[in-house]
Amino acid sequence: MKETTVAENLAPSLLTRYHTIRKFTEHLTAPLTAEDCAIQSMPDVSPTRWHLAHTTWFFETFVVTPAIEEYKPFHPAFQYLYNSYYNTVGEQFPRDRRGVLSRPTLAQVMEYRRHVDEHMRELSTKGTAFSSLAAIIELGINHEQQHQELILTDIKHVLSCNPLYPTYVAAPARERRDAERVAWIGFPEGTRWIGHSGESFAFDNEAPRHREFVDAFELASRPVTNGEYLEFVKDGGYRRPEFWLSAGWQQVRSSGWNAPLYWTEIEGEPYQFTLSGLQPVDLAAPVCHVSYFEADAFARWAGARLPTEAEWETAADLPIAGNFAESGAMHPSPAFPHRSGSLRQMFGDVWEWTSSSYTPYPGYKPAEGALGEYNGKFMCNQYVLRGGSCATPQSHIRPTYRNFFPPEARWQFSGIRLCR
Amino acid sequence: MKETTVAENLAPSLLTRYHTIRKFTEHLTAPLTAEDCAIQSMPDVSPTRWHLAHTTWFFETFVVTPAIEEYKPFHPAFQYLYNSYYNTVGEQFPRDRRGVLSRPTLAQVMEYRRHVDEHMRELSTKGTAFSSLAAIIELGINHEQQHQELILTDIKHVLSCNPLYPTYVAAPARERRDAERVAWIGFPEGTRWIGHSGESFAFDNEAPRHREFVDAFELASRPVTNGEYLEFVKDGGYRRPEFWLSAGWQQVRSSGWNAPLYWTEIEGEPYQFTLSGLQPVDLAAPVCHVSYFEADAFARWAGARLPTEAEWETAADLPIAGNFAESGAMHPSPAFPHRSGSLRQMFGDVWEWTSSSYTPYPGYKPAEGALGEYNGKFMCNQYVLRGGSCATPQSHIRPTYRNFFPPEARWQFSGIRLCR
Amino acid sequence: MKETTVAENLAPSLLTRYHTIRKFTEHLTAPLTAEDCAIQSMPDVSPTRWHLAHTTWFFETFVVTPAIEEYKPFHPAFQYLYNSYYNTVGEQFPRDRRGVLSRPTLAQVMEYRRHVDEHMRELSTKGTAFSSLAAIIELGINHEQQHQELILTDIKHVLSCNPLYPTYVAAPARERRDAERVAWIGFPEGTRWIGHSGESFAFDNEAPRHREFVDAFELASRPVTNGEYLEFVKDGGYRRPEFWLSAGWQQVRSSGWNAPLYWTEIEGEPYQFTLSGLQPVDLAAPVCHVSYFEADAFARWAGARLPTEAEWETAADLPIAGNFAESGAMHPSPAFPHRSGSLRQMFGDVWEWTSSSYTPYPGYKPAEGALGEYNGKFMCNQYVLRGGSCATPQSHIRPTYRNFFPPEARWQFSGIRLCR
Amino acid sequence: MKETTVAENLAPSLLTRYHTIRKFTEHLTAPLTAEDCAIQSMPDVSPTRWHLAHTTWFFETFVVTPAIEEYKPFHPAFQYLYNSYYNTVGEQFPRDRRGVLSRPTLAQVMEYRRHVDEHMRELSTKGTAFSSLAAIIELGINHEQQHQELILTDIKHVLSCNPLYPTYVAAPARERRDAERVAWIGFPEGTRWIGHSGESFAFDNEAPRHREFVDAFELASRPVTNGEYLEFVKDGGYRRPEFWLSAGWQQVRSSGWNAPLYWTEIEGEPYQFTLSGLQPVDLAAPVCHVSYFEADAFARWAGARLPTEAEWETAADLPIAGNFAESGAMHPSPAFPHRSGSLRQMFGDVWEWTSSSYTPYPGYKPAEGALGEYNGKFMCNQYVLRGGSCATPQSHIRPTYRNFFPPEARWQFSGIRLCR
Repeated sequence: MKETTVAENLAPSLLTRYHTIRKFTEHLTAPLTAEDCAIQSMPDVSPTRWHLAHTTWFFETFVVTPAIEEYKPFHPAFQYLYNSYYNTVGEQFPRDRRGVLSRPTLAQVMEYRRHVDEHMRELSTKGTAFSSLAAIIELGINHEQQHQELILTDIKHVLSCNPLYPTYVAAPARERRDAERVAWIGFPEGTRWIGHSGESFAFDNEAPRHREFVDAFELASRPVTNGEYLEFVKDGGYRRPEFWLSAGWQQVRSSGWNAPLYWTEIEGEPYQFTLSGLQPVDLAAPVCHVSYFEADAFARWAGARLPTEAEWETAADLPIAGNFAESGAMHPSPAFPHRSGSLRQMFGDVWEWTSSSYTPYPGYKPAEGALGEYNGKFMCNQYVLRGGSCATPQSHIRPTYRNFFPPEARWQFSGIRLCR
Repeated sequence: MKETTVAENLAPSLLTRYHTIRKFTEHLTAPLTAEDCAIQSMPDVSPTRWHLAHTTWFFETFVVTPAIEEYKPFHPAFQYLYNSYYNTVGEQFPRDRRGVLSRPTLAQVMEYRRHVDEHMRELSTKGTAFSSLAAIIELGINHEQQHQELILTDIKHVLSCNPLYPTYVAAPARERRDAERVAWIGFPEGTRWIGHSGESFAFDNEAPRHREFVDAFELASRPVTNGEYLEFVKDGGYRRPEFWLSAGWQQVRSSGWNAPLYWTEIEGEPYQFTLSGLQPVDLAAPVCHVSYFEADAFARWAGARLPTEAEWETAADLPIAGNFAESGAMHPSPAFPHRSGSLRQMFGDVWEWTSSSYTPYPGYKPAEGALGEYNGKFMCNQYVLRGGSCATPQSHIRPTYRNFFPPEARWQFSGIRLCR
Repeated sequence: MKETTVAENLAPSLLTRYHTIRKFTEHLTAPLTAEDCAIQSMPDVSPTRWHLAHTTWFFETFVVTPAIEEYKPFHPAFQYLYNSYYNTVGEQFPRDRRGVLSRPTLAQVMEYRRHVDEHMRELSTKGTAFSSLAAIIELGINHEQQHQELILTDIKHVLSCNPLYPTYVAAPARERRDAERVAWIGFPEGTRWIGHSGESFAFDNEAPRHREFVDAFELASRPVTNGEYLEFVKDGGYRRPEFWLSAGWQQVRSSGWNAPLYWTEIEGEPYQFTLSGLQPVDLAAPVCHVSYFEADAFARWAGARLPTEAEWETAADLPIAGNFAESGAMHPSPAFPHRSGSLRQMFGDVWEWTSSSYTPYPGYKPAEGALGEYNGKFMCNQYVLRGGSCATPQSHIRPTYRNFFPPEARWQFSGIRLCR
Repeated sequence: MKETTVAENLAPSLLTRYHTIRKFTEHLTAPLTAEDCAIQSMPDVSPTRWHLAHTTWFFETFVVTPAIEEYKPFHPAFQYLYNSYYNTVGEQFPRDRRGVLSRPTLAQVMEYRRHVDEHMRELSTKGTAFSSLAAIIELGINHEQQHQELILTDIKHVLSCNPLYPTYVAAPARERRDAERVAWIGFPEGTRWIGHSGESFAFDNEAPRHREFVDAFELASRPVTNGEYLEFVKDGGYRRPEFWLSAGWQQVRSSGWNAPLYWTEIEGEPYQFTLSGLQPVDLAAPVCHVSYFEADAFARWAGARLPTEAEWETAADLPIAGNFAESGAMHPSPAFPHRSGSLRQMFGDVWEWTSSSYTPYPGYKPAEGALGEYNGKFMCNQYVLRGGSCATPQSHIRPTYRNFFPPEARWQFSGIRLCR
């Protein structure tokens, strides 16, 4: 958290970004009813209304309350209700019970948002205070962007449980394309600098920048498509233990998995639930909603493997562009035709599972205080995903960005890029 | 199901009752938000919106659809979504997942109600058809009254999970009274006629009327009070296995029970969550929200026992009056001062656990077809409760009425009357 | 517990019975290896070695210790290890963990038996003390007989889990007989005296003798056979919810039941695991190892019902004879040809599920002290079975005898007799 | 698997080692009763008898059966009963049900061992066949050594569940020593060669040898002692979430952990269950039976961290000596006084948790066929431990050896060495 001497200059633009991001959240939740926003369809999922309140709680707790001496919390119970997992801040309402709270209502939560937004605006007129909090505000903005993605993935799960197959956005008109052939892009061995450094924002888990020795490798030019994955399914992929990690095979058997999450069969044809309702599976588009176990099994079936984080990052020294949340499609698209031999869709469309466990970089130090709980304490039994998805805000992503989920998680827009 | 020859006379009054009961349901749900109506706080609880739809589905399925040839169901999926447990009718959406459905919304469910109400009205103009369905309509009305009580007990559980302690109705001004002393009312031994017979409506589980030999017994003049129950608690009632059934003791240990459901302690004083929020425990009022296990343990501690069904019914040959849902209090009240030696509060206030397992009466025959699933198939591992509660509609109750719940259930307004 | 004035006469015969029963227990366990005696194959099952020790603990705790002032317990920890469920006596080693104890070994437990037997013998020389304990010794003898049956049913379950299908006794040569046709034996309505009275031993749950009004009924002349049950199976019995209690149907679905316990199919023919290994199902023999749920569903399919306790006992005023543990067959047999119109196999072969919940008789009083925990505290969510089985010692059974198990239990030798 | 041209020379020494290791297994199980060998005290634990049979099955399946054409399996069911997890070989008896098998008895399993040993001996006379199988025999020997350690850790768990605290070996006389002060041994940054290469045996997961860049680090000269760990406990280590990974904190709360496994308190003093029964905790000895979660939390409390695999292996270029299974102590010992500044107890005493997830080395290839299931499929949600323990055979360990367990596992002899 660095002091800025030119608070007058910084504040306005940060504030502008603050309000832009806050509005985008509300833009994303606009199509939802009060009931949609109340449901927790599984313990991993939080109700939309909770996301709307928790992101606000973050600014209230870490910015407004410390910065405005006379500030009175909007509601005394929100400290407890909307604290996600910060033990340093206090006890938390149990995560898997978020769906039993009918109050505060959606309308009250929106009022809470306006209340905190108003105080953020007020804060910006107090030059110095605001700029000294700039780093935390920046973190809060990025935090809210993470929850924008979770709002989308969580509501997708909620709606998918409903046999009425409700629609969140109208399906975009889609031109059918054939998937292009995979090319293998080679990279030589060498000691690489991995991780983030410099002035711009990054989460603490992306630092420190450090060296890793990386053997020579080849990366697939595009993600695995639905068509390729369907071949794996048809080849008995889910019935043949030889492709699976032991824990993955147990999961397949106990959960009865036989296709990616949200896939179903209608009269012999594969369909999938999307944020535009039930749609035929587009064979040319990247496969999505697969777990690490499935990604790993597919790779073994295909005679390849998943890349490590360091390999992926070595290859990802590219401009950031792609199919992100801003596009409104809310679903992965097939790759556009392109010049042969270049990497495609490294950013957007689907998160790409790496074979790397989520561990601290050498010399990693979490922040002091409550915000030190942001990342470090989750570094166990999770795998790193890279590159963002069609539900990630574009301005949120970086080549060094580390997302992470347990190997059985499937409700994120997670896909597969092969390596060898 | 008997044919009525004077359909013209019957129909109007039945229809009037139909609409009165339907409106009372909506009166009960009026104070609730769309979010309140969406929540399922435990598997036993159904969302209010589900109750609103399911009671409507009952009339649509068993009355409107068979009676109006050209009737098109309001929505094709409702057959599946709102079937509670009638295997004969078809598959059911899983009970413990009712809380994941955000659609249809509350507004759409209210529209569904109006739609079916409209067709019921239309039906009444078709004299004969309507009267031939009179018995099923009567059943549907009683069915909706049962769900009125469940709406109240379920929403109480939902709101109780919220640390904000929301209020459903304003607390009535209550005059504090001391509890009157218990008198023991004696009944001689003899062969008794038990169960329902005659023209008026009763559920199939109340028939046939039959003989049971009943030994002499004495029944307490009023239910056990909170004050008496508190003595049991203070005497180590929840820590002494000698008072408990083996299964009850296991429940106490595994669930950490140490007081009735909804009780909590604030600075050493007992409070309870009510439909009017958190309130001090009124020591003179009947204890409520105790399981069969607790009722049975309390009775053993008190040197008494619970009455059997037959004993209770023998004693209950009394006019029906008391604190019912219509009073709007939504909470048990202390007994009014009375002439010594008479039975008090046999109806209303709290359901009274009997020591009788819920079993078929000798010669019991469930109805033909789907409605045969109404009662009989639940006759296992449940205990009978008698007399109705402050959440029961008064016109719904009879001396022969048999309510039933598993011995661990506590979220109904269930209390204790002693016998010896 | 009555004082006997002629201690000298009583003691020897009681002691003789004591030693006879103790020896019979050891006769039953003789074919088992040390490993057989160590296994707990499910929480309901106890290791044979535990039964051997617990029955000994009963005599040590309730007879030897109070009667012999200077007696030192065989081992200080046995009080804790071999107490089944007597909270009054002290804490108990957890029931579902009995299978983790490898020590004391079988040899040590047999030594424990000899030690207590020796002290029992010593006790008999002390005339008065012994006779004053006569009632408890009688209870202990009956208690050990109950565990003789459990030793057989538990080891059957243990061995059944082993794909090697071990044999406990050689299969008796069996003459194949056809099942005889069922006759229906009628009984008129009337007030009946039910329960035990008089001098001879009975458990407290059989008292007091009391009146019940019983409507007229007809009882099947013999239990349901495997052949009849197989028709139910083939008619889709396990796939048609209309026959089942709601809780039973849930059990069928969650457990995947499709036949009685221990049945399997080999090349299209039904086989069952028996204490003589895997054997073809004898269609003429009584069906066995069915739960209450299955008994009840079968009865509904057959257009009949299960008898109540009172009905069964009304009919059971018969001499006690049949296929009991002493026969060594350890499996139900087909009925012998008989004079038409009489009740067959009321005793022995299979326990017969009644439709009666296990509840206290009017005026029931458990014994004072620890032995009051013997029966009463289990009167919840269990059904009564009558008549004994091929694993019950013959001298243990009476017309008033009440056995009880939860409705899902199948590992006892439990069968079906129809009523209507 | 390489062909050896001088089979005559190789065979005898390999066979000698085979028989030595087989005998050592039986030496380890000699103090156990038949009952001890039958118990499975938790799903992770296998009965001793199963270990005795499974290691034999390994040689029968992978050596004897393929090498001796006319060989008839000892028992047709053993293929199924004693296959641990090789899907390629066939279905497996469920792992968590190994404790329900009372047959084959211990005596029969010992006969099975002799039978296979005999055929192994016979095989050695057939020069070529034997030598071509040398690599698999070598694997089988190492496999049996792994099960030797599991026999010890599993029986320790079994005996620990018994309130009699049985003793497996007499406690060695122990000289009390004070723990010596920790020194920090420094290592410079650099690209390191990690993993195994060369002629001698290693598991496939130790290969291929490859480069990793390792930053400069310091390693503690000895493992954390019980005394140091006790300070952590007394400082509220198990009550302060700030030291714990999120998943670890959940484990602490749900399991009620408040000390290492096997610790208990007697009159305020810490005791621990050992293979010599209950003993006072020796404050100078290495702490043992801690999970990864506890190791990681302790390190954070101590202001240090756990080493990575690469760091540990960089430091472990040392001769192999220490307190191994051969010593017979079966418990970690305090470090002997030593020349300051050198690494102590890197081998033996306790396995040391590293912060490295168990992942394949770059270029890792599992073996072809069934033996490819040996290691690779477990590379998920496990952490690597290094250095062996007091229950590991000394000849089994190497600096490159990778042991692995889930982060919550505590029943191995697992301890902590700090790094910074």
